[in-house]
Amino acid sequence: MSFYAMVVLLALGFGAANAADSSSPKPPAMAEVIANSKSGDWRPIDPENTLYMDLATGRIVIELAPTFAPQHVANVKALAREHYFDGLAILRVQDNYVAQWGDPNGEKPEAARKIKNARKTLPPEFDRSIDSKMPFSRLPDGDVYAPEVGFVEGLPVARDPKSGKMWLVHCYGMVGAGRDSAPERGGGTEIYVVIGHAPRHLDRNVTLFGRVVKGMELLSALPRGTGPLGFYEKPEQRVPIKTVRVAADLPPTERTALEVMRTDTKTFGQLIESRRNRREEWFQLQAGRIEIGNVPIPVLAATPQK
Amino acid sequence: MSFYAMVVLLALGFGAANAADSSSPKPPAMAEVIANSKSGDWRPIDPENTLYMDLATGRIVIELAPTFAPQHVANVKALAREHYFDGLAILRVQDNYVAQWGDPNGEKPEAARKIKNARKTLPPEFDRSIDSKMPFSRLPDGDVYAPEVGFVEGLPVARDPKSGKMWLVHCYGMVGAGRDSAPERGGGTEIYVVIGHAPRHLDRNVTLFGRVVKGMELLSALPRGTGPLGFYEKPEQRVPIKTVRVAADLPPTERTALEVMRTDTKTFGQLIESRRNRREEWFQLQAGRIEIGNVPIPVLAATPQK
Repeated sequence: MSFYAMVVLLALGFGAANAADSSSPKPPAMAEVIANSKSGDWRPIDPENTLYMDLATGRIVIELAPTFAPQHVANVKALAREHYFDGLAILRVQDNYVAQWGDPNGEKPEAARKIKNARKTLPPEFDRSIDSKMPFSRLPDGDVYAPEVGFVEGLPVARDPKSGKMWLVHCYGMVGAGRDSAPERGGGTEIYVVIGHAPRHLDRNVTLFGRVVKGMELLSALPRGTGPLGFYEKPEQRVPIKTVRVAADLPPTERTALEVMRTDTKTFGQLIESRRNRREEWFQLQAGRIEIGNVPIPVLAATPQK
Repeated sequence: MSFYAMVVLLALGFGAANAADSSSPKPPAMAEVIANSKSGDWRPIDPENTLYMDLATGRIVIELAPTFAPQHVANVKALAREHYFDGLAILRVQDNYVAQWGDPNGEKPEAARKIKNARKTLPPEFDRSIDSKMPFSRLPDGDVYAPEVGFVEGLPVARDPKSGKMWLVHCYGMVGAGRDSAPERGGGTEIYVVIGHAPRHLDRNVTLFGRVVKGMELLSALPRGTGPLGFYEKPEQRVPIKTVRVAADLPPTERTALEVMRTDTKTFGQLIESRRNRREEWFQLQAGRIEIGNVPIPVLAATPQK
């Protein structure tokens, strides 16, 4: 990573990594994998495929997933482009589950935020066909919920070779479109993010369309709502949304430059192994296995070198 | 539950349960399992086996696990009884990982809080022998990390029949004794709680000794620390601990009356099934499996009937 000065946004976890020792035959710890990575191991996130949600406390960056939810991605971008979310609020924070935002007046037809060009609801995009040409970095460690799990384009994915389907899975930081009981009653006007243990029972029950790549702590550390399902009971408890924008619509100087580790590389395989069997001095026992929810997808703040 | 008026502390998750229909042959949803439970399905928590950590924002209740970590439980109670923790602070909150508390001056011998009767460090209690007489409610759904998982005495447990060992696992809300790199360098003066996706790679690397049964949101919603490992960088960011007490040492009127669902009952089996295959109207697809981190252990606030 010679051309960028980078700051690791990813938390490293318990214990410091051992100093890199290039003569050592043992696999590298995560800090070494990142330190030894090449520029080709990273990809910038595409501004046309990125949402910024700005709160008073800072910016949340969401990378969108058009490969998995093209209609929802298009619609959420259309909503952002008509400034649908500006001035709406985070309405619900349920401990160990989700934070959710949308229109506080969504249930009151006369007071609800008007939609100009976007669609109010969409058919569900719960899964899609497996495309065998699409790189799939499979985790051989197994999974309780799905026949296969792994990574596609920087996202946690499950696959079922029998049905020929694949789908995004509800790991920490994944973003989806809330819906009513009828499956076609979502579309991106109500959005939730996973802030707790992966609620995998939601997989294929609701459309995931992106992942928070920066700013999770602005959502995960919000006060929990005390109403049913974690809804805030008093209007003044809600957290106002200043703006939601497509990154490409901002001048480059106002964008947040990020690079995400590619998940179709040997380096990402090394990263998984570094988390499967922790080599840091603190660890007494190596797990030998890793569950998809514990695989980090590193994100770096990229600052062009002067 | 005729003799108690009860308030469910457990979040119910997406969607409301269907109204109970006793003529329906389908298995009950979680709300029905709880509504139909009998008093024998619940147990009060033992005040001698319960810690209260009082912050300015409220009380955190920790049920201790002497079956799995007898020395750590005894030592943490001894520390509480000599008021070791009073005036110390939450020092570290790492997003999607742990919150940790202890002595801000722990590294400065002259300024560190003195220990009177308790022990500063203890041998690890990472696992223990399986006792075949101890009820083990095994989850047949599988697990990525361990040969067997299930519940013992209201706690999430893994077992390895080959080695004859069992151990507590790092699910959300589990409480452990932080340690330095040497495994005997813990003992309960530094305590952490899991606030994110179950970090199962910590299993058998660190001694778990209890579970938060009330007040998790007072820890999980704290601001994340911005230093390495989520440590707060400025002293004023630390969250002061008013007191930590053994519940039995408080007069009964000052205790928090709680009942925990027993995990060795048919009712708990029904509860697991209600979460494995969600019958609430909102769900389109039933997962058919459940991972141990997604099994709730319900806790009720028990108010004696007048």
